[in-house]
Amino acid sequence: MAGKRVKRVRARRVTPGEVGPARAREEHLAVEEPLEMRVGGSSYAVTMRTPGDDFDLVAGFLVGDGVVRSGTDLTALRYCAGIGPDGLQTYNVVDAAVSPAALEATRHRERHVDGTSACGICGVASIDAVETTSSHDLSADDTRISTDLLASLPEKLRAEQRDFDRTGGVHAAGLFRADGTSLVVREDVGRHNAVDKVVGWSLRTGLLPLRGTVLQVSGRASFELAQKAVMAGIPVLAAVSAPSSLAVDLARRSGLTLVGFSRGDRLTVYAGEERLVP
Amino acid sequence: MAGKRVKRVRARRVTPGEVGPARAREEHLAVEEPLEMRVGGSSYAVTMRTPGDDFDLVAGFLVGDGVVRSGTDLTALRYCAGIGPDGLQTYNVVDAAVSPAALEATRHRERHVDGTSACGICGVASIDAVETTSSHDLSADDTRISTDLLASLPEKLRAEQRDFDRTGGVHAAGLFRADGTSLVVREDVGRHNAVDKVVGWSLRTGLLPLRGTVLQVSGRASFELAQKAVMAGIPVLAAVSAPSSLAVDLARRSGLTLVGFSRGDRLTVYAGEERLVP
Repeated sequence: MAGKRVKRVRARRVTPGEVGPARAREEHLAVEEPLEMRVGGSSYAVTMRTPGDDFDLVAGFLVGDGVVRSGTDLTALRYCAGIGPDGLQTYNVVDAAVSPAALEATRHRERHVDGTSACGICGVASIDAVETTSSHDLSADDTRISTDLLASLPEKLRAEQRDFDRTGGVHAAGLFRADGTSLVVREDVGRHNAVDKVVGWSLRTGLLPLRGTVLQVSGRASFELAQKAVMAGIPVLAAVSAPSSLAVDLARRSGLTLVGFSRGDRLTVYAGEERLVP
Repeated sequence: MAGKRVKRVRARRVTPGEVGPARAREEHLAVEEPLEMRVGGSSYAVTMRTPGDDFDLVAGFLVGDGVVRSGTDLTALRYCAGIGPDGLQTYNVVDAAVSPAALEATRHRERHVDGTSACGICGVASIDAVETTSSHDLSADDTRISTDLLASLPEKLRAEQRDFDRTGGVHAAGLFRADGTSLVVREDVGRHNAVDKVVGWSLRTGLLPLRGTVLQVSGRASFELAQKAVMAGIPVLAAVSAPSSLAVDLARRSGLTLVGFSRGDRLTVYAGEERLVP
């Protein structure tokens, strides 16, 4: 049993210039807690996340890193005994048991991080790294999606968010089929965590690689989000807000369709527009 | 000479349902590039950031981590020779020369990360870590700030943003005195980088600890941002959007005034409201 996603705290809403003490009231906050991910018992990464769907988060993170390539790479997930200062189990440490190949990939990853120091770290090198690690060829995915449907996804995503109305403080990621069918929606204080939870759910449901799908995110499209889409074999990434330069570079190199400023009545296509139909 | 902050790309704005090809046009994107930070020649961290003010970014990151506590801890900053695949200098690796005490602190940090595995990683432990590392006692800062002034800061921040109008894709952080004087505003694709650039500029300008100041940020207030404020001795953190539960917990424990949903005509106070006056 993992922790809560939303927490209530006392706070005061203030209207500037108003005389007299502001009323204290209960406000709902998105919960943020650290999660340590281990692979084969060794510490691998720590992320600050909203509790819930932690196994999906770890699975998706490992897919994004190129460590886990299919369901057979991930043999087990379990919470480690972690006792907080209050003496209670924290449920903030998850250990992933993986295949020998995946374990080997974690060592490659460490070497790669060291390797960047020598060769001049830059965006091009970061894109090269994604291309050499990815096992999916997005250019072979001939998905077509209508711009009408694409424009409707931000509202669909918003409608399926559970915690946003109460907290105003969570990002969301949703996976949809090209016909608009919703597959899964996840929320998190970290936008990258929301995407990891979606990808991890897909892996554990046997849906990877995610051919013929659209990943709709609530915020901006960074390199990291584009990388996670490519690593999961998702052909279309749509963001409500702006993409970064490196997200566009990666999308163009890897055959990912990248859409930004998707706001119902308009959207901007930065890469892979051959997948869009009226 | 570091890289550009904004890049132009060809893209198409699409109005769903519109017949005929969309017009291609030039769009401005916020540049995102990796930056490797080294301390004493050893790789310390990598962040995806918008180029510019890189020395401030590294300095601020090291303050937030508790490695650099004052200007004397940071003896030099320089770009390392890093050659990208195009044969050009990338300006994406910065080495910080630090005092023996700061170098020792980087080793403590590594031990601490390992240490969390054994003791049950959780929010309380994360807050404890900030408290043991911080050299500033915020509760001794008797700054008072009017809610009128506080409510005006998001607009002031917005007015000083250079890249947002063109890209729509950058976060901003601004440091203001309690009388509203603007000290520094920085933008970045990563909200944490924008704060690091502000804190690093302050360190290198000789302003640390930042008593009597307000840090206004454009997005949400996560634990990480609250941590960076505490480590820099900033008594008031105001965010345009929601705080997370752990940001509020840290603020209450460390004497930081934390304001969220600061939107001109209203704001919500989550911690340290004794600093606010009408």
